[in-house]
Amino acid sequence: MPDGDHVGGSLTIFPINGVDEVLPGQDLAAVIAKSVGSGGQSILQGDVVVVTQKIVSKAEGRLVPVDHDDAAAKIALVENESVRVLRRRGELLITETAHGFVCANAGVDLSNVASGHAALLPIDPDRSARRLRAGLRRALGVEVGIVISDTFGRPWRNGLTDVAIGCAGIAAVVDLRGTPDANGRELMATEVCVADELAGAAELVMGKDRGIPVAVVRGVPSQWLRDGSVGDEIVRHPSEDLFR
Amino acid sequence: MPDGDHVGGSLTIFPINGVDEVLPGQDLAAVIAKSVGSGGQSILQGDVVVVTQKIVSKAEGRLVPVDHDDAAAKIALVENESVRVLRRRGELLITETAHGFVCANAGVDLSNVASGHAALLPIDPDRSARRLRAGLRRALGVEVGIVISDTFGRPWRNGLTDVAIGCAGIAAVVDLRGTPDANGRELMATEVCVADELAGAAELVMGKDRGIPVAVVRGVPSQWLRDGSVGDEIVRHPSEDLFR
Repeated sequence: MPDGDHVGGSLTIFPINGVDEVLPGQDLAAVIAKSVGSGGQSILQGDVVVVTQKIVSKAEGRLVPVDHDDAAAKIALVENESVRVLRRRGELLITETAHGFVCANAGVDLSNVASGHAALLPIDPDRSARRLRAGLRRALGVEVGIVISDTFGRPWRNGLTDVAIGCAGIAAVVDLRGTPDANGRELMATEVCVADELAGAAELVMGKDRGIPVAVVRGVPSQWLRDGSVGDEIVRHPSEDLFR
Repeated sequence: MPDGDHVGGSLTIFPINGVDEVLPGQDLAAVIAKSVGSGGQSILQGDVVVVTQKIVSKAEGRLVPVDHDDAAAKIALVENESVRVLRRRGELLITETAHGFVCANAGVDLSNVASGHAALLPIDPDRSARRLRAGLRRALGVEVGIVISDTFGRPWRNGLTDVAIGCAGIAAVVDLRGTPDANGRELMATEVCVADELAGAAELVMGKDRGIPVAVVRGVPSQWLRDGSVGDEIVRHPSEDLFR
């Protein structure tokens, strides 16, 4: 079924300031709720909360020791997180992860992690998002959408953008197929990946150089606030991909 | 030079309602300024105005007749707009355009165009953006950033997102390399493609099914409001691309 009209309203996007450093095993929802409670910040019913992969991975203890000066060890770590290597150029590997993501170095994150450790992707980012959604419901009494974002490169285009690696309570892809366009003809090819657009929009207020890991998008059309899954909706099976 | 801090503020994104149907040869800035003047809408100094490719192409007369039932004619049109065909599956071609964009069907747009015509991409979308920026300066007395957006698919991920095909007065890629991260280590690989993230964010309020072609992003960090170019900053040369 088409997801219908999503027009007219405005969106507001703002960072959640003052989120504490997250430690392995910590309850991420509690950490976020605590920072929301200070400084007059709010997360409201129907908001979409975008959270970076990094703090999800930290909370879930997805940290492994790595010697930053040992290139071979880093490559072995990436290969261990990969099911397929698509391209290799020096220390840069473009690989497919067990989740089906295609990205640089299997999403293994060496920045903003305490010295001597790397952060691996969450094992099941959609599940991580569902858990955070339930936690924020308990902590704040609101139903929100969750997008877990990560920073990926793209073929053909320079520069990185944030995309969704997990979501809950928000559509990953909004299906507008079959909705007549402004001239009354049926639209083709209009499955919009709103989860990726939300992740990228949130990045604009996060500031990679300052490491703000949580942002809120307010004003998302209510019909998008349904069960969603990056794994089911966004990840393309290799057999349907023209570039694998 | 790094573009520095871009943290703290919030963004607001809203559609410009009531934009008239654009006809070939019309002054796009005048059309937008007219709709802004009605209904209490505003475009302010420092805003980023995101405009879809479709109305830019229409204003520039980039319409060609095509029989929508003639598959061979449509393929010939796409091939004529391409410098290289990367993949072919039935009627879908993934090609490289003269601009260096890699996208489906060379960006030839068959939706939302008056029956019997297709819209080609602007010849030089960065130039189109500069022209629109100058026009809005004359019409409204404000300096704004311009992003011309189009809807592209991606390898490996389902769903489409809006990306930038041209820009003016706004950085395409923000260079955060060399800015220390929150732990004081130098960040690597942090060239953020803000123009694509702005295009995607604007799509969230445009509604492909209703054809709203203009949206405003308010609150963009002032240091991003500099000369920018999609062609110079985002388009990756084939020799630097791992997937061509």
